Amino acid sequence: MKRLALALTCATLFAALPAHAQFQKPEDAIKYRKGAFTVMAAHFGRIGAMAQGKVPFDAAAAQSNAEIVATLSRLPFTAFVEGTDKGETRAKPEIWTDAAKFKEGSQAMIDAVGKLNAAAKTGNLDQIKAAFGDAGKTCKACHDNFRKE
Amino acid sequence: MKRLALALTCATLFAALPAHAQFQKPEDAIKYRKGAFTVMAAHFGRIGAMAQGKVPFDAAAAQSNAEIVATLSRLPFTAFVEGTDKGETRAKPEIWTDAAKFKEGSQAMIDAVGKLNAAAKTGNLDQIKAAFGDAGKTCKACHDNFRKE
Repeated sequence: MKRLALALTCATLFAALPAHAQFQKPEDAIKYRKGAFTVMAAHFGRIGAMAQGKVPFDAAAAQSNAEIVATLSRLPFTAFVEGTDKGETRAKPEIWTDAAKFKEGSQAMIDAVGKLNAAAKTGNLDQIKAAFGDAGKTCKACHDNFRKE
Repeated sequence: MKRLALALTCATLFAALPAHAQFQKPEDAIKYRKGAFTVMAAHFGRIGAMAQGKVPFDAAAAQSNAEIVATLSRLPFTAFVEGTDKGETRAKPEIWTDAAKFKEGSQAMIDAVGKLNAAAKTGNLDQIKAAFGDAGKTCKACHDNFRKE
């Protein structure tokens, strides 16, 4: 059962990942995960601007942005493959030396933006604010632990 | 009616775009659209590998990849804002000087990957191959016309 649970967790994290390698070169994987984080951060930030009252609340825009964030949240972690710790990356070695903690942190973010997505669907700004704050903490935790300055 | 049709087309293209600017700096917009294209191309390529028989056909993976491609296809075009023709970009000036043609090409790609997504849901490899080929042509058309070598 433990093995099954682990397999299911991995299947969630790497939903789009078949058995063979997804990236031809290490730099392809790095470029991909940075791209996914960039797009995710942009849409996350747009929800943040509403949550923080910097722009007027637009329920439809919040919902659309949260859906994109949720879709993208699963993607970058497929690209932290072995050999992608060098080059144009701020990835810390701990991603690979403490892989269990990294996976835990990744999953926490995926879960939190899933909740943000659910909150956005309610159209309730207070719920969105709370879920946004929680999700932001999961981003920060991984950046603090696993990303170089 | 023509104005309404145009408004609806724009609403489709820029679904996540509120009235205010989405990017603080031109380089943010460039980084964003390149990120979106990178992620989209990676997942499009994974369908291509199956369509071309380079990797075994996996219907679930094709479906998952096609869904990601369809979601991402709408995003980059929100970032071709004025003033983003310089810097780390291969965008040709024609994107802005022939904006109608660029928008038409963008929409053709969005429509074609929508059809690819529908084909992937059938699980029929022949349909996926055909839709992949059609979508690939819309990518190439815009690259030929609007992207520098």
